Amino acid sequence: FASKLPDVGTTIFTVMSQLANEHGAINLSQGFPDYPCHPDLLDALTRATRAGHNQYAPMAGLPALRQAIAAKLQRSRGIAVDADQEITITAGATQAIFTAIATVLHASDEAIVLDPSYDSYAPAIAAQGAIPVRVALRAPDYAVDWQEVERAVTPRTRMILINNPNNPSTSIFSAADLDALAAIAERHDLFVLSDEVYEHLVFDGLEHRSVLAQPALRARSFAIYSFGKTFHATGWKIGYCVAPPNMTAELRKIHQFLVFAVNAPAQHALAEHLADPAHWQALPGFFQAKRDRLAPGLRAAGFKLLPSSGTYFQLADFRGLRANISDVEFARWLTIEHGVACIPLSVFHVDGHDAGLVRFCFAKRDETLDAAIARLASLR
Amino acid sequence: FASKLPDVGTTIFTVMSQLANEHGAINLSQGFPDYPCHPDLLDALTRATRAGHNQYAPMAGLPALRQAIAAKLQRSRGIAVDADQEITITAGATQAIFTAIATVLHASDEAIVLDPSYDSYAPAIAAQGAIPVRVALRAPDYAVDWQEVERAVTPRTRMILINNPNNPSTSIFSAADLDALAAIAERHDLFVLSDEVYEHLVFDGLEHRSVLAQPALRARSFAIYSFGKTFHATGWKIGYCVAPPNMTAELRKIHQFLVFAVNAPAQHALAEHLADPAHWQALPGFFQAKRDRLAPGLRAAGFKLLPSSGTYFQLADFRGLRANISDVEFARWLTIEHGVACIPLSVFHVDGHDAGLVRFCFAKRDETLDAAIARLASLR
Ligand SMILES: CSCCC(=O)C(=O)O
Ligand SMILES: CSCCC(=O)C(=O)O
Repeated sequence: FASKLPDVGTTIFTVMSQLANEHGAINLSQGFPDYPCHPDLLDALTRATRAGHNQYAPMAGLPALRQAIAAKLQRSRGIAVDADQEITITAGATQAIFTAIATVLHASDEAIVLDPSYDSYAPAIAAQGAIPVRVALRAPDYAVDWQEVERAVTPRTRMILINNPNNPSTSIFSAADLDALAAIAERHDLFVLSDEVYEHLVFDGLEHRSVLAQPALRARSFAIYSFGKTFHATGWKIGYCVAPPNMTAELRKIHQFLVFAVNAPAQHALAEHLADPAHWQALPGFFQAKRDRLAPGLRAAGFKLLPSSGTYFQLADFRGLRANISDVEFARWLTIEHGVACIPLSVFHVDGHDAGLVRFCFAKRDETLDAAIARLASLR
Repeated sequence: FASKLPDVGTTIFTVMSQLANEHGAINLSQGFPDYPCHPDLLDALTRATRAGHNQYAPMAGLPALRQAIAAKLQRSRGIAVDADQEITITAGATQAIFTAIATVLHASDEAIVLDPSYDSYAPAIAAQGAIPVRVALRAPDYAVDWQEVERAVTPRTRMILINNPNNPSTSIFSAADLDALAAIAERHDLFVLSDEVYEHLVFDGLEHRSVLAQPALRARSFAIYSFGKTFHATGWKIGYCVAPPNMTAELRKIHQFLVFAVNAPAQHALAEHLADPAHWQALPGFFQAKRDRLAPGLRAAGFKLLPSSGTYFQLADFRGLRANISDVEFARWLTIEHGVACIPLSVFHVDGHDAGLVRFCFAKRDETLDAAIARLASLR
């Protein structure tokens, strides 16, 4: 079998969630909430199915949902987007990412990926026969050296991928970051894929800046979002991609043969749910409180914490607790021996870089966080 | 923009459904039911969401759903399938098809497609930088000349795609067809993609033979199925792929980065619904009655009908009604002037072959079929 992805195993999220289940560990590894999503969302889904919305949605997505997205972008950010020509509903953000990559990259093209980065980017690039080119960022601040990024550009480079807010580093791009990115993208005529699934999860009064708000980036970016992350329903698998009309037209060519259309009743329910800004405006405070609930427990257990500026993750340095052990070994040990599952950070680094860090997900009920803290107290 | 799919436009299904909506035509074009799906299925979905199944399903699919599929294959066909290692749940059959193609085909590989064929196969192949090689089948019987298929094999051929029962031709492979296919696949070490989404829609006592029941094909086939077609819920977008463990392992490598996982509440509902064979055993009779309701009306209107052996489609020759007009023009004219939308068959032929045929979908309420017949009566 000439494997398309010879080096790929099972994603770390599946591996750690399975290990957590096997050992009855509290699962702070894979990023998903353990509390219910809003009952209105479930009611809206039931209504949609009863109203008979169980047949194919339009290929690009339900018009009402695309219009609700455009209205939200306009109202909450002052960004004007054409619902017909610039928004495509996808089977989760992961499908949007894969599809945008498949739209742009041909065999032996190159795409620049910041390292560490979400684990689907590089395999999605490799699946096109294209080459992910890594630029390493390092803890604790994971700052991007844009000159180094520009040095990684070659005549074969077609795209730069960013994730803002960033999973796993939690860092958030400044206006200067976006300007530097825009300058490079313009100089070398590159597309940008901007994974913004954690757009609403920013803390301490920080501001998320979308590529959609930066004119030079707006013209060359696929901006990707997730209803799963925003509405606590990761299992629904509905996301979307915003891109200029010419790029959207090409994206939809792939989309229509990759999946054709997306779950119809969920799209109806989400269109309704999106109409009420209360459904997302409280998110920063909601998650910041969870971050601040978990953090002292981790510190008391002996972890040294990195700043968590956004997303629903907290990075923690475990070397004060156990030295001379890899992060993968530490994560397994913590799961099996202390009943709390986390994600080792080296899996996000293609160069295997191990900074002695693990990632905890705090998108959990307060009781879950408290129970995890109680278990971790035994560490010292 | 170096388009991945320069020749691709909007699928004919979207084009004709839109034209039907614009002109208030009865839509017998795109293949989807206009009657409600089973209330038990909707109840099961509501229960699943209330039980909290709104977060990520496992990457390969919900174990309960994969087990229910394995049990169904065992019980109804005597086919043994390993639920863990051979079944992958996908976001509809279209995603399964794209993913199987992406798993196998590298740039400049070739894949053999029978022409006419479902409109996603060739673009999905082209999106890999691979080359669809067509073998033309012709009305009225669309019989496959397997020697011609074998002559199309080159050292670059990796895969043969079949669709059984066939959309649009409605033909069903005999045991001799499958044996001939197996011999070619074995001789040239080819994978087979067998799109069997209409497995339950076979008429007149004919039997659907799956590649899963033919040992030589079983070992080298991706067999693909659709809950949308089987349970009258095309908008749910859940399908699955059955393949040997080594092929499934490679398929899942792509799947996990293409979509990661599939709508969780729908998987729970389908697992429950699948447990009752009554939910699919009546399908042949149900659809045969619809075929037999539409057919006399089409004949009375002046169409000459081809045999419809399976699927939910009826092919009709319109040249006795209007000569010297292309099938595309005829389909538009029928939609706009007579208020009944259908699909011109030449769009399924990459060589543009026009046999004067259109395709009607009879997966519609009896009232819808009767109303269409009434409108068509004005044709003569
Ligand atoms: C698609 S499973 C992974 C969920 C996630 O975004 C994460 O844990 O980083
Ligand atoms: C995915 S839309 C097309 C539905 C269908 O299978 C058909 O009409 O042939």
